[in-house]
Formats: sequence, C-alpha cells, structure tokens
Amino acid sequence: MPHPVTGLPVVGMVGAGQLARMTQEAALPLGLTLRVLARGPEESAALSTPLVSLGAPDDARRLAEFAATCDVMTFDHELVPAVLVRALADSGTPIYPGATALETTQDKVRMRRAVAGLGLPVPAWAPVLRERDVADFGAVHGWPVVVKRAQGGYDGRGVFFMAGPGQLPVPVEEGLLVEEQVEIERELAAVLARRPTGEIAAYCVVQTVQREGICVEVIAPAPDLARRVSAQALEMARAVADGLDVVGILAVELFDTGGALMVNELAVRPHNSAHWTIDGAATSQFSQHLRAVLNWPLGDPGTCAPWTVMANILARAHTTDPAGLPAALADRTVRVHLYGKAARPGRKVGHVTAMGADLEETRRRAALAAHRLAGEGS
Amino acid sequence: MPHPVTGLPVVGMVGAGQLARMTQEAALPLGLTLRVLARGPEESAALSTPLVSLGAPDDARRLAEFAATCDVMTFDHELVPAVLVRALADSGTPIYPGATALETTQDKVRMRRAVAGLGLPVPAWAPVLRERDVADFGAVHGWPVVVKRAQGGYDGRGVFFMAGPGQLPVPVEEGLLVEEQVEIERELAAVLARRPTGEIAAYCVVQTVQREGICVEVIAPAPDLARRVSAQALEMARAVADGLDVVGILAVELFDTGGALMVNELAVRPHNSAHWTIDGAATSQFSQHLRAVLNWPLGDPGTCAPWTVMANILARAHTTDPAGLPAALADRTVRVHLYGKAARPGRKVGHVTAMGADLEETRRRAALAAHRLAGEGS
Repeated sequence: MPHPVTGLPVVGMVGAGQLARMTQEAALPLGLTLRVLARGPEESAALSTPLVSLGAPDDARRLAEFAATCDVMTFDHELVPAVLVRALADSGTPIYPGATALETTQDKVRMRRAVAGLGLPVPAWAPVLRERDVADFGAVHGWPVVVKRAQGGYDGRGVFFMAGPGQLPVPVEEGLLVEEQVEIERELAAVLARRPTGEIAAYCVVQTVQREGICVEVIAPAPDLARRVSAQALEMARAVADGLDVVGILAVELFDTGGALMVNELAVRPHNSAHWTIDGAATSQFSQHLRAVLNWPLGDPGTCAPWTVMANILARAHTTDPAGLPAALADRTVRVHLYGKAARPGRKVGHVTAMGADLEETRRRAALAAHRLAGEGS
Repeated sequence: MPHPVTGLPVVGMVGAGQLARMTQEAALPLGLTLRVLARGPEESAALSTPLVSLGAPDDARRLAEFAATCDVMTFDHELVPAVLVRALADSGTPIYPGATALETTQDKVRMRRAVAGLGLPVPAWAPVLRERDVADFGAVHGWPVVVKRAQGGYDGRGVFFMAGPGQLPVPVEEGLLVEEQVEIERELAAVLARRPTGEIAAYCVVQTVQREGICVEVIAPAPDLARRVSAQALEMARAVADGLDVVGILAVELFDTGGALMVNELAVRPHNSAHWTIDGAATSQFSQHLRAVLNWPLGDPGTCAPWTVMANILARAHTTDPAGLPAALADRTVRVHLYGKAARPGRKVGHVTAMGADLEETRRRAALAAHRLAGEGS
C-alpha cells in the first residue's frame, strides 16, 4: 500500500532507536516517511517520526499488524526472533535482511559456523556444551580464552576473559562459546550495502577503536592499510553478503593481527562503524540501507574528505550540560549528531564527525567535541 | 518548556511546506524535533514530523496556542500578519524573524522603501495610488514598465509587464507598485544567517536561473563573478540583515545589470536559492536557520565542491513516473530531495543537486535528473 499522498512505498522499521532516527533523516529527502515499531513513545525514532506503532519486537501479532501497514520491512536491531521473520516473509511483505541472515547474526555459534563455512578466517572457537569444554579448549589452544554468550551481547556485554580453568562466569545453559584470545593489532570494519539483485556498494574499510568493549572512535579510511589487505577485507564482506543473501547494510567487524584478518562480528543493519558516512561519504549508510531494501539503485559510497573521524558521545551524567551543545557547535569543522535521548552515565546519546586533511588534528577535534557533548563533568 | 526527554528547546515553525520538512531533517541531528503549524495533515512537513498542530497562519488564537508550546518560533512562509507576530512577541515567546523584518518583506512597497532607505540600489519605482501613476511613471522612466502586486506574489505571480499606457491588469485597490524594467544580464542571490547577537555567516553568492518567473536552477558559486561584485553583494545582504534586524536566514535576490547590482526581492526564511547548501555546503541553510533562531553558534558556510548546481523538479503531470526515482538515483553524482508532495502540473515537488569540477557537465546532470523526476511525459 504505497503512501496515499506521494505514491511512494512505505518502509517499516522494527525498532525505534537512533538507527531508526537516522534512517528517518535519510528517508525524508527520498520523499519517504519511515514507519517504526517502538517499544515506547519516548524512544529516539518515536520522537522523530509521525508513523509510530507501539509493541514489542517479539510479539507475533503486533509484528504481523505492523507488516500489514508496510510495503517493505526492515530492522534497527536484531531482536526479532528469526522464526517470526520467516513466518512474516511467507505472508507477503518483503522483509530485509531475511530470516537466514538475521538468525545467523543473532547467535554467535551459528555466525562462527556460517563464516567458517564460507571459508573465511575466524578465531579458533568451539561451542560450550558442558563446563569442561572450556578447559579442554584452553588445554589445546592455550590460555587466556574468551567466553561469550551466543546471544544478546553487545558493546562488550556478554564477553568474559578466563585466564585459566575455573568456574564459568555464566551457566552453560545460557548458551556459550569459547574462543582463543587473538593477539590483535587493531580492529577494522568493512561495511557494504547489497540489493536483492546482488548489486553491492562498499564503503572504504575503517578502523574502529574500542574502550572497555565499546566503540568510541572510527577512522575512515583505516590508516596505513595496505591496498591488498583492504581488498581482502572487502572481499570477505562481499563473501558474507552473498553467502547469507544479505539485503541492506552489512557490517563485518574484523581483527587485524598484523599479518592476517579474521572475522569477529557481523551486523545486518546500519552500524555504528559507518555513522561517519552521514557526513563523510557521498551517500550515508542510512540512505543506502533504504535504497537496498527498496531495491533502488545504490548511491555513491565514495568519501568526501581525506580523513573522516567519528567519535561516539557517551553521556557522563543524567543531565546534559546546556552549554555543551553550543560549545561543540562553535567548532565549525565538526558535525554534531544527537539522538534525542535522555542522558544517563555511559549511554550513547550521539556522535560527532570531523573531516580534514590532517588525521591527528581531525581526531583531536572529534574527541574534543564528543567530550563537550558528554555532559557535566567536562 | 524544553523537551521533557532531551532537555533541548522546542522550535516551532509556522507553516508545513517543504521548507519546514527540510528544517525537520536538519533538526534531527541537533537532537531537536520541530513542531509545525500546518493548514492540513497532508502538508509536506505534517507528513514528516510527529508534532503537528493544525490551524491557519492568520488565526490569532491558534497562533497564540502554538506559541505557548514552543521555546522559540519561526516561519516557513511570510503569511502571518505582522501585527499578530508583534502581539505574540510581546507575550513572551521569542519569534524570529521579528515583526519588523516580516512586515518589510510582506509588502513590496515597504520593502523598496526600506532597502532604498538603507542606501542600497533598487530599480526606479513608485507606489501606485491612482491609475495614472503608472502612465506618469512610464512617461518619466520609459516603457515598458513592470507592475507588481505589493503583497502575496511569488514564483512570478503578481508581476505584469506593460508596454505602454493602458488599463491596469489589476485594480489599484489591491495594492500595486510600478518599476522600471531593468535590463539585466542575470539574477544573483546572496544568502546569509544572522543570530540575535548580530553574528553573521554568509554563503557564497549564487546565480539563479528563472523560466517564466519560476526559479529552475541555482549555480553555486555564481560563475565569472568578479570578487569585487561578490563582496558588494554580500555587503548589501549584510546591510539588509543588520538594517531589518533579521534573525535566521535572509535571502537577497539581486539583479546583475553587468555594471551594477540592484536589490530585487528579500526573503527572511530558508529560500530556494540556498537549497544547494544541503549537499554543497558544510552547513545547510536549514541547520543555520535553526542555529540562528536558537542563538547557537552558526556552522561553516563553506562549499564542498568547485560547483554545486540545484535544479527544481516541477511536476509535469498528476502522477509521478514510478520509474523516475530509480532512474534519477542511478546517477551516482546526483542527490535527490523529494518533498513528499502529490504531483500536479507545474508544482515544485522536489529538487536535485549535482556537484562537480566541470560546470556544464554538472548542470547537465542536475537538469537530467530533475527531468526524470518530473513525472510522465519524460
């Protein structure tokens, strides 16, 4: 049911966080208005679009009602049970990414298996079915090891380091895997968009910088990245996209061990590692995601500046500093993106982007603006 | 009353056309959500923001109710009677631009008087109080002359050319002025943003191309513009901004007669001649307008490419061509901006922007994309 005024298709997004909000921003110039399924009326995208349905993303009836109001459906998170997505897809509304891609990224055991099955390098790993599987794995691959929840972890949550055999940090029943602790030089991300036709548009490979498991900074393109390694990273992302039949944005997080690349994580939705594209690329990942799920021609993924640096704004307090925004805006080289979220300590409430020809200067500016916007205590 | 979730001020915009829609797009990354006063629920911005009040822009009670829900109020058109704006400003909500700037731009007689009063060059003109004023004016300044409605004209409406003495095209009672028909080489526009503090950020001077009185193309910067003339245009815009105490965006439309500049029209709101700034400037006019009315630091008005060309999409039919949008999106050098409006012949339903190093190639691309998006008959 195209929009009665514009005649353009209605895109529905399950979830109403900042990814949906930034997708709404990208939808406007395309003449579209996003419809979102929000848990509550104060979510980031629920405050920014007029077409809001309320409901939980695992409520089959609400999902079906929502799907019936959309010409195509997509997601701002991976919390919808794949079985529901499969049922909805069968009922007629195109849903991207599809159930296979979704369920592969919802479970790290499936994900490792799928990625390894595509012949791509991953850290040594094993599913943890019994307590002793971890000790056995450590005995073979050496200590320390990394124990991860198979489902639901993000921003470093659900990841545990074990220096030697001992009691597991969470019960086996919760679904775990164990991995070698890879000696990494840095982390990279390869992000692309893929249409149902198989057409792909890839962004340059970026470096992501984490602090306590949370991404704080992204540098585009990744500095000092050999052309060969960059091509390899993009080839890996392409193999995943084709292998899982991803439609929309795919982000492949990679370990760079100095000599080789390994796949760390996958996301089949707009991703923090490509927020820099709003300002730093000819087409943002949010516009690309919409074009991909609508099967429209993808935009130019090229960069706008020699260096683009994105810094996340992690709130330091429950109140924002009213002077912080004007102070950050006063640096004319910086672009501010606030998500319309209430502040609380550690919460990601926005990001900033700086562009320039001098990398260190650009990083410094982005970091300073993000610091100013993080609230009181600055 | 700042927003209960974000703590940020609520900006209200009277009018819900494409200017409000594009302002909403600029509001999102600033963490803001625009509140709009729309005539009807299907207006461009009413379809794109959740905070919509319905009412006519000349309904004093609705305006007062609307103002009471906003921390600052601004406009996407000039249809609010200045007397109401003055009354509202007295009641406490800051309103930008103020009543003086608004009433000056609402009436071409006042405007000509004010601009001339600032010592800026304008075409020879006179108010038309009696039928014979036109003939008298023609006798002194020569024929043909241009007769204009003082109020309400736009896109060439309300402008009449008279080759010699004769019956006026509209009754004198409607409020008219008469002007010399200036021999112009081209039309230019100088656009800037001004804060209540007086701080100004000016965009480069652009060339506007009209067809049948309607702007069809804008070239930024204006080609072959002598540095001296560019500086003069910006100085004229600055004089108007300071003289009328404009807060927000000011657009000054200029005649370039080859040897001199004359002020043609003023607009004290985001303006078609600066739509190119969304893609082609570091800060869009819509973001600048918000920053200005909030008294926040203005952004960088610098350009992103050697040439940016904006082409308006004027619909050719009542239905859009469903293939037109994908066809236009297939040119990766072009950015599409649709306003979410129903098509009807001649209606401005969007614009496109192209950027590049070769001016003629850039113009060609923008024109082709606009043509494709104009609907059936292409």
